[in-house]
Amino acid sequence: MEVYLDNSATTRCSERACGLMVELLTKDYGNPSSLHMKGVEAERYIDEAKKKIAKTMKVSPKEIFFTSGGTESNNLAIIGAAMAYRRAGQHIITTSIEHASVLAPMQFLEEQGFSVTYLPVDRHGVISLEELRDAVREDTILVSLMQVNNEVGAVEPIAEAAAIIKEINPNTRIHVDAIQAYGKMAVTPKEWNIDLLSVSGHKIHGPKGTGFLWIREKTKLKPQMLGGGQQKGMRSGTENVPAIAGMAEAAAECYEDLAGHAEHLYRLREHFIEGVHGLAETSVNGREDRNGAPHIVSVSFAGVRSEVLLHALEERGIYVSAGSACSSNKPAVSRTLQGIGVKQELLDATLRFSFSVYNTQEDIDAALRALEELLPALRRFTRR
Amino acid sequence: MEVYLDNSATTRCSERACGLMVELLTKDYGNPSSLHMKGVEAERYIDEAKKKIAKTMKVSPKEIFFTSGGTESNNLAIIGAAMAYRRAGQHIITTSIEHASVLAPMQFLEEQGFSVTYLPVDRHGVISLEELRDAVREDTILVSLMQVNNEVGAVEPIAEAAAIIKEINPNTRIHVDAIQAYGKMAVTPKEWNIDLLSVSGHKIHGPKGTGFLWIREKTKLKPQMLGGGQQKGMRSGTENVPAIAGMAEAAAECYEDLAGHAEHLYRLREHFIEGVHGLAETSVNGREDRNGAPHIVSVSFAGVRSEVLLHALEERGIYVSAGSACSSNKPAVSRTLQGIGVKQELLDATLRFSFSVYNTQEDIDAALRALEELLPALRRFTRR
Repeated sequence: MEVYLDNSATTRCSERACGLMVELLTKDYGNPSSLHMKGVEAERYIDEAKKKIAKTMKVSPKEIFFTSGGTESNNLAIIGAAMAYRRAGQHIITTSIEHASVLAPMQFLEEQGFSVTYLPVDRHGVISLEELRDAVREDTILVSLMQVNNEVGAVEPIAEAAAIIKEINPNTRIHVDAIQAYGKMAVTPKEWNIDLLSVSGHKIHGPKGTGFLWIREKTKLKPQMLGGGQQKGMRSGTENVPAIAGMAEAAAECYEDLAGHAEHLYRLREHFIEGVHGLAETSVNGREDRNGAPHIVSVSFAGVRSEVLLHALEERGIYVSAGSACSSNKPAVSRTLQGIGVKQELLDATLRFSFSVYNTQEDIDAALRALEELLPALRRFTRR
Repeated sequence: MEVYLDNSATTRCSERACGLMVELLTKDYGNPSSLHMKGVEAERYIDEAKKKIAKTMKVSPKEIFFTSGGTESNNLAIIGAAMAYRRAGQHIITTSIEHASVLAPMQFLEEQGFSVTYLPVDRHGVISLEELRDAVREDTILVSLMQVNNEVGAVEPIAEAAAIIKEINPNTRIHVDAIQAYGKMAVTPKEWNIDLLSVSGHKIHGPKGTGFLWIREKTKLKPQMLGGGQQKGMRSGTENVPAIAGMAEAAAECYEDLAGHAEHLYRLREHFIEGVHGLAETSVNGREDRNGAPHIVSVSFAGVRSEVLLHALEERGIYVSAGSACSSNKPAVSRTLQGIGVKQELLDATLRFSFSVYNTQEDIDAALRALEELLPALRRFTRR
């Protein structure tokens, strides 16, 4: 039996997405820049993908730009916007619990002379709107916030934050890293009045190696990938047509029945959290109600090393994550867990369980059963 | 009937590559950064891909770094090396007929204060080693040369060039854009004594959206994509495992019988060139013998607009390119054709025919037959 509960790391590609990719890899394999039919056809797949994705967010297809994934989307949005608006100011705001693909560009910008304010979060992983209000300045050119935290599933108050930011400084651009949110909840950048939004393909049952950046019309970015001028010069390089089409198909699948999917995920999550409460010396980090994201649960197991528990679960075919899987398997201390105030001794005793619509109640039961059996033994072992 | 003669723009993905991709998209879909089996398994596919590719070039697997494609490989090599060695000097050398993904980074570096020398080429598209020798200076930190030109198939004397460069300035790093060469001829960066080499997946019957950069040990690069620190920090972002594995499989296929493939391609090319010589007012640009690349032929048709001929051929199911397809379908004047001295009136009367091992003699005959029939009619039309 295989129980894959690491869907925030990556997901299985959907049948529909994969089927379309095979078609575009082996039959309609043209280069969209070619002038002949096979190129035009390829371009049509891209246009179709833009439309499918735009529909899920109620935006214009013209505002969708394809990248090689979430990391590139975040890099392009943050470094691209900072460099484009540098003359208007050099202050940027983000949170202390962002993904590495946001924090690393911030560090790079600090080296370039920018000043970055890192907002703290409360014990649920949520920023304070008051602290945000105090942080926005006349020279704040960019605010980057994640919609859903990848480690504890905290949901940030994007619309409220955007209203405050634009009220104080209408020229501040707002970027949202929606990589963990997209496909699981409503993502409506125009309603929120933001300017940039990042999404990754392989977190939503699409292929790896693709993602997109929504760029609100009239937002300026300094391109990062230079060459043939594809995508209006914003991102050069032959478009990855099969993966783009596959991602759009996966996106459409997510949003065809978003409410149904979310309900399914929340039920799995609630069932799991209920079970976790029955385990000794075990606690859930972050919100447990439906104010949290539907698919992520962070659990600390006192007296157990996360890596040991992870491998014990793995032996039973249950796949989970220690912290997040996004940091190139270097086991570093989680800034997010520290940020929400997880006790020192639990930082290395925490696992992330992340669900997808492919998971069932049986999967959850199997995970709970395994935890129940493994924990007492592992604790005896650790505490000896 | 479909005759695809635009293989320098992009190629059909091979069955073997596509089959492996489907496996990795839907079954072994783990994130290589995950600590559990599914992650370890994914990492193994990457290691396997590195080994397969390294073998084709007689280099170490540790020196292979995956990117999102040829454009990113060229950007990372050029901007990355320039920024890493900036303190040693700010002079760079390249040729006047490079691909846009080399020339655009060069322009960016010029804006940053670097000085770039663009070497001219002869009527065959080949640089002069004497002019190269004269150009190398004490502050030359980087030379970037393409192995095969994408528009006329000129093959540059890489080994000889590298010997001259390193003799004058052993600290000069050498980058080779091998995107059009890899898979069709021997690519041996260590024998040539160069430092960086770019390859794209979709030009060799692998998938789009992937490529690699060979980075010789101890060569420093400033990473361009920042985040989780994957690939030893050189290129952050979840590795595109299915595409990486697919590309490596396609690479292995190319090199399993390189001599056989090259012979097949040269025969197609020679058969085509022979036919072209039978057409009135038609001339081949660049070398016609086996000193040129095996898969590219550039032909000028006096008195015919290339776009008109391209579409007339397309109506017969024959797909070719006007110039190269790499410039986001903006019909700009070709720097390469200008560089080799094609007459002004022929610049817009030139098509590129590019072959793959999937093409047959019948494909070539069909193209020649179509040209023979179409040219007189189109010329009457144009010249009226």
